[in-house]
Formats: sequence, C-alpha cells, structure tokens
Amino acid sequence: MRTLTGKELAAAIRAQTGAEAAAGPQPRLAVVVATDDEASLWYVRSIAKAAAGVGIACDIVDLGPEAAPERIGETLAKLSADANVHGLMLQTPLPAGASAQRLAAAIDPRKDVDGANPLSLGRLAAGLPAFPPATAAAVMALLDHYEVELEGRRAVVVGRSTVVGKPLAHLLLDRHATVTVCHSRTRDLASVTSAAEVLVAAVGRAGLIGAGHVAPGAVVIDVGTNPTDDGGLVGDVDFDAVSQVAGALTPVPGGVGPVTTALLLRHTARAANLP
Amino acid sequence: MRTLTGKELAAAIRAQTGAEAAAGPQPRLAVVVATDDEASLWYVRSIAKAAAGVGIACDIVDLGPEAAPERIGETLAKLSADANVHGLMLQTPLPAGASAQRLAAAIDPRKDVDGANPLSLGRLAAGLPAFPPATAAAVMALLDHYEVELEGRRAVVVGRSTVVGKPLAHLLLDRHATVTVCHSRTRDLASVTSAAEVLVAAVGRAGLIGAGHVAPGAVVIDVGTNPTDDGGLVGDVDFDAVSQVAGALTPVPGGVGPVTTALLLRHTARAANLP
Repeated sequence: MRTLTGKELAAAIRAQTGAEAAAGPQPRLAVVVATDDEASLWYVRSIAKAAAGVGIACDIVDLGPEAAPERIGETLAKLSADANVHGLMLQTPLPAGASAQRLAAAIDPRKDVDGANPLSLGRLAAGLPAFPPATAAAVMALLDHYEVELEGRRAVVVGRSTVVGKPLAHLLLDRHATVTVCHSRTRDLASVTSAAEVLVAAVGRAGLIGAGHVAPGAVVIDVGTNPTDDGGLVGDVDFDAVSQVAGALTPVPGGVGPVTTALLLRHTARAANLP
Repeated sequence: MRTLTGKELAAAIRAQTGAEAAAGPQPRLAVVVATDDEASLWYVRSIAKAAAGVGIACDIVDLGPEAAPERIGETLAKLSADANVHGLMLQTPLPAGASAQRLAAAIDPRKDVDGANPLSLGRLAAGLPAFPPATAAAVMALLDHYEVELEGRRAVVVGRSTVVGKPLAHLLLDRHATVTVCHSRTRDLASVTSAAEVLVAAVGRAGLIGAGHVAPGAVVIDVGTNPTDDGGLVGDVDFDAVSQVAGALTPVPGGVGPVTTALLLRHTARAANLP
C-alpha cells in the first residue's frame, strides 16, 4: 500500500506560493477568530507561522469567544472593504447563535480564500471561477499529485458539510467522477463505501472507516482530524486496518492537513494578484 | 406499477397559488427571452397562460435571437431593480456567446424564482433560504405528493446540469437521502442506476433509461423532455419497458412538467410576499 503523505506536496506549493508572493506587493491574509477552542487557536497560529514562511502577512483578528454575531459580521465587512487585505477567512467554531454560513456572506468573494461565502460554493457548483474551501482543494491536489485517475471512476464522499463534503462533490463531478455523498443517515454505509474506487472520509469521527468499508485497492483520503486523549490527532479512517486493504491511504497527521494550509496561502497570493 | 402523474398536484399548487396571489398586490413575473427556438417560445407562452390563470401578471420581454449578452445583462439588472417585478427568469437557450450562468448573476436573488443565480444555488447547498430551480423543486414536490420515503434511501440522479442535477442532489441530500450523481462519463451506467431506490433521469436523451437500468420496485422520475419527429414529447425513460420493472414512474408529458410551471408561479407569489 502507498502512503499518500502531504508534506512534500505542501512544501512544493509553499515554495511556489513564496515566489508568487514575492513577485508583487506583499499579500495579506486576515483571519477572524471568535473562540477560545484550543485546537482552533492552534490551527490559526499555524497558519500565521506558515504565512510568515512564504512572505505573506497574516493578521489574527481575535474578537473573543463572547463576540456578538453583529460584531463578527461588521468586522468581516470592514476587512472585505479594506484594500490592504487580500485574503479573508472566518475561523470556526463561532459563539452560540452565530451562523458561519450567514456571516460568511459578508466576505468579498474575491477575498474568500477558504471558499466560505455561499456565493463561492454556488459559483464552484456552476463551473464559474471561485476559491474552493482549502480542505476540499487539498483533497483534489493530493489526488492529482499522486496521479489518481478520476474520470469515470466511482468516488464516494462520506460527510455532507458545506466546508468539505459538498464542495468536494462538485470538484469531483467537475473532473468527471461518478460521485456519491453519504452521511450519518446512510443505511449500510459499508456497502456504499465498498463500491468506491476513490473514498474520501470527511466526517470527524475517529475510526469510522474500517477495513470492511473499503474495496481492495481503493484510494482512501482521510480528511478527519480527531484529537486523542493523549494530545495526538487521528483521522476518520482506522489506518492500520484499512492499510491492509486499500491501495493508497493518506496519513493523519501529515496528509490532507499540511496541503490545506499551503493552499490557503496559495489562494491568498492569487487573491492579491487578481486583476 | 403506479403512474405518478403531475396534473392533479399541479392543479392543487395552482389553486393555492391563486389564493396567495389574490391576498396581496398582484404578483408580476418577467421572463426575458432571447431565442427563436420554437419549443422554448411555446414553454414561455404556456407560463404566461398559466400565470393569467392564477392572477399573476406575466411580462414576456423578448430581446430577439440576436441580442448581445450585454443587452441581456442590462435588461436583467433593470428588471431586478424594478419594484413592480417580483419574479424574474431568463429563458434558455441564449444567443451564442451568452452564458446563462454568468448573466443570471444579475437576477436579484429575492426575485430569482427559477433559482438561476449561482448565489441561489450556493445558498441552497449551504442550507440557507433560496428559490431552487422550479424543475428540481418539482421533482421533490412529486416525491412528497406520492409519499416516497427519502431518508436513508439510495437516490441516483442521472445528469449534472446546474439547472436540475446539481440543485436536485442538494435537495435530496437535505432530505437525508444517500445521493449519487451520474453523467455521460459514468462507466457502466446501468450498474449504478440499478442500485437506486429513487432514480431521477435529467439528461435530455430519449430512451436513455431502459428496463436494465432500473431495480425492481424503484421509483423513477423522468425529467427529460425530448421532442419527437411527429411533434410529440418523450422523456429520458423508455416508459413501456421501465413500467414493467419500476414500482412507480412519472409520465412524459404530464409528470414533472406541469408541476414545474405551477411551482414557478408559486415562487413568484411568494417572492411578491417576501418581507
């Protein structure tokens, strides 16, 4: 079985992004945060660090875990209108009562580097230019990097979130895969996922996908990032079990994750160079 | 086998819509046309006639088959800004060089009664309020009218258009079906469609779905409307053959079509009553 690591690909994307960023005025990414969730804050700091590494400025705009939805919306609108900001993202989770979907409508689609505005999703689905969510884009980048054929093949996405499952379904359809979306209400999940030549798990439940869910030789991409009791991270796929069956499998950590961050930066550099 | 006719349901929707339309100021639908395609013009006239029947005003704005994309866009923008117009749709086909997807972005989402603006599709996908395309909505209305269970069931949509296949996939997902989208590049289509408990054909190719594509007892919805040499209309499904296998099947004409027109009018009446 091939282990589809993301580190090499992420490094290549970062190197290219660094060159793009250096070619014009410095790109600037603003990340709006309204949480005290430790994993989330750690992720935002890792973005800032990676941005610095490729010459992209990154402002963390921390509104605190008690921020009112109106204040978050106003902040996004202000940053959308700020000509010095090229990329803009809203980190989740949000305070109770705040809807990421509704608030993200305030992000200028040209700065929507994590594809969170419903207009970006609609444009993606309609085949018009748009930034896809970085995680969904990372899955496609990994499949391309490892030259996984998609045209005419059966792809199954487990998870129907607006940030991963749904946009990913459109990206796979656009590449002429036959696409199935499964979720918590799917009956006999294993029988559906076992038909997949390309299987993507994006649910957020450790060990959801076992050996019995995977066809021999299938390519499996694990988008899950579930914290373990000892401070580690595991995916939605039982790596040891599935690696006995699958033809290829991404590790967690070190698979989709680093590519996601690298693509967020690439999107920011490209947003800075939009005509 | 049950024949799932749409006429009764369409009449019920029209009756309810007539009552909604009569309750406030008269709703007005504007249909922008830029084609000399006979089937398309016939459809637009049938909308106008149905609108009159429920007390909705309908303006056919015919720009002619040579209209420049800019002129179409300006017309949509003007009608979007017109407070007397509550519903607005752009009829296809369009002149060469005009993109329905791009032009529909000029339709105010609150007036986008045929769900053509990419923002409407994105909002639909994100679970936010939006008008779905009337055809996709008609499929759901028929399934509901005939009390077809969707939760946890395998639904297969053949066709990945922005006007039917893609929005329908989101509507089915929203109702907790496990959804597969097939298309022209799908390998071994019959093996995929045969797994469907609910099968929707929305491609536009007469006779594409035969008995070998359908599982015994499946519910089959035929969205296709293909003109025949003798001036008639047939669907994508071989009715006679499939009716020997399916548990239920919509006829063409008289299935999805009348419900689509009725829902377009319902959307217009509701658009007129948006707060």
